[in-house]
Amino acid sequence: MTDVPMTARTGPKAANASTGEILSGYLTAQAGAFLRALPQAVGEAGSRPGALPAGGASAAAAAGTEELLRAVRRIGGALHTFAAAFERDWSAETRSELRWLLNLLAQEPALLRRSARLLAALDSLSETDPLGPGMLAGHAGAPKARALLERQLTLARTRAHSTVLQELRSARLHALADRMTLLAGDVPLLDGVARQEGGTLPPLAAEAFGALAAEAQRLPLSRAATPYGGEGLRRLGTVPAAREPSAEPRTRGGEVDADSAVAADDAPWHRVRILVKRARYALEVCGAPDAELDLLDCTLHRHQEAADAAVTVATAARTPRITPATAYVLGVVHADQRLEVEAARYAFGHQWPNLALGLPQAQGAPPAPRMA
Amino acid sequence: MTDVPMTARTGPKAANASTGEILSGYLTAQAGAFLRALPQAVGEAGSRPGALPAGGASAAAAAGTEELLRAVRRIGGALHTFAAAFERDWSAETRSELRWLLNLLAQEPALLRRSARLLAALDSLSETDPLGPGMLAGHAGAPKARALLERQLTLARTRAHSTVLQELRSARLHALADRMTLLAGDVPLLDGVARQEGGTLPPLAAEAFGALAAEAQRLPLSRAATPYGGEGLRRLGTVPAAREPSAEPRTRGGEVDADSAVAADDAPWHRVRILVKRARYALEVCGAPDAELDLLDCTLHRHQEAADAAVTVATAARTPRITPATAYVLGVVHADQRLEVEAARYAFGHQWPNLALGLPQAQGAPPAPRMA
Repeated sequence: MTDVPMTARTGPKAANASTGEILSGYLTAQAGAFLRALPQAVGEAGSRPGALPAGGASAAAAAGTEELLRAVRRIGGALHTFAAAFERDWSAETRSELRWLLNLLAQEPALLRRSARLLAALDSLSETDPLGPGMLAGHAGAPKARALLERQLTLARTRAHSTVLQELRSARLHALADRMTLLAGDVPLLDGVARQEGGTLPPLAAEAFGALAAEAQRLPLSRAATPYGGEGLRRLGTVPAAREPSAEPRTRGGEVDADSAVAADDAPWHRVRILVKRARYALEVCGAPDAELDLLDCTLHRHQEAADAAVTVATAARTPRITPATAYVLGVVHADQRLEVEAARYAFGHQWPNLALGLPQAQGAPPAPRMA
Repeated sequence: MTDVPMTARTGPKAANASTGEILSGYLTAQAGAFLRALPQAVGEAGSRPGALPAGGASAAAAAGTEELLRAVRRIGGALHTFAAAFERDWSAETRSELRWLLNLLAQEPALLRRSARLLAALDSLSETDPLGPGMLAGHAGAPKARALLERQLTLARTRAHSTVLQELRSARLHALADRMTLLAGDVPLLDGVARQEGGTLPPLAAEAFGALAAEAQRLPLSRAATPYGGEGLRRLGTVPAAREPSAEPRTRGGEVDADSAVAADDAPWHRVRILVKRARYALEVCGAPDAELDLLDCTLHRHQEAADAAVTVATAARTPRITPATAYVLGVVHADQRLEVEAARYAFGHQWPNLALGLPQAQGAPPAPRMA
């Protein structure tokens, strides 16, 4: 994204269509995608209760879930960013129900990806091929650590799957599906919004960018700008003043514990990720998807996945009665995942300034952040 | 170093002095430094047999050892690079004795530095200050791992110290001191060399650069050029074809073990470090020390120290009967040190091309390497 003003970047739709046409067009399309994906995701999961999807049949269910999540995120994002166009209670309720479904459905695929990520990392680290041995080549603890991680992640997936099975037949899901059926037919816009010119949307999208810029400005980007700063594993960043109380590391008798310290360190990055998604979907609504924003989303996805994987490894290392060799390998894998977190932050630090330069200066939006 | 030809970079000495004057001037000065530092290093160590130097008095001994090692490295380097100017057997024997002393004396300070490095890393990683907690903040295994590393490194230092005490009173050291006394008075140059013009030295220094360029060209610099390539911990680099048999990872029934795989990965970097030192001292002899070469030496020193520290941690993790928590912390510290190794390689990859651009093209020297 270069420094093209937002009003010039909203694509053909915004130029010729009314606000109502643009929002209705986007939301009915996404609600339709939701309804098409739902039976695929639900039917498959429901047909074999208790069984983990595996093999060919599950691929269809996984693809269905993927499509469903895609639509859920987009509808939720549009309802948030363009909230002013909708009846307040309806939009708040719908977003709340979409969030519930997102949290419910996202878990199992996330655990599957985490399992693949961690086992691949472990296999690389313990690879014994002389042409590309890993730093744990042939280590006695590697097979045990692998088995431990696989067992714990499979267990977590089984649990997540059972929860999904229960909820997919619930009245709550049926109610949400009804809501989406209505949305696919007729988007409940506020009186007067339908006939407004499409030009009312870009300022709202610009606000989404403003929120993103404000949050990104608080990130310790100067720290992330140096590769191998050595600070990544050793000293977690602090975001002085800007940090919300909820993100403060928990202290226990004045002592900080590692889990909460790491969580507090990651929290502002996870918040920025949500804001990147909102900005991304806002531009989609305006008919002007942005490749650099997609890239940023991808980078922060990598950040989140590595951070979550690191937590899983730290938890596995607290399993009682593991051998020291297993624990040692888990320590290396944990550090490796935190290194991936650092790598994603470094990548973000290089991608963000380009994008920030082209940020629209919405009224009240803070100035574009600069790299220190 | 920019692209100034070597002949223009050899400073005032080379321009006005004969080969004999230049070599004699350098070597008598270094031999004098050797003889001044020797009693300080030996006297202190000898006065308190069995005791580890600690506190004020040891600082003088440590400084003496530092000065002694400095002179030893420079004399050895000059004798190697300008070997053509000296009687072959005398120079080979002298270098061999200097290497013996270097290996003997370098160990204790290296262990002291390694101890400081690892304990500082561990303290950073387990720091519980809410403003900069480490990724192992408050981890139960941290104090145990710290005590284990400290104990093992102190033991190693005590052993190294005893060996030094034994050898410092040996006839071998007295013979080397006699050799240095002779060198401080009169440098045994080959007939004819003394009266040659100083211009015969730069081509020999250029050969030292050629050897450095040839070895640096074999390094996997393209891999090191990407920060956080993720390959650092996971897949150790291979230097196909260029690798010497001694650097091949040992295999055991076709399996590669981690220690030898890592050692084989580090070996070419350690070789380049030696060649950087030789090139550095060769330029000093020619009266043209080079700041970029000093920086490169410093970077590869960091590489070596981190690689050695990682080996120490891996060894400590194999101590019988340690707790899983201790082993886990050691795994994180090991990965942290290998990360430092990667950081040094990345730094080298950025420093080297600048320097290589200005490399003199000695006859028979390979072309300057390029970054892939």
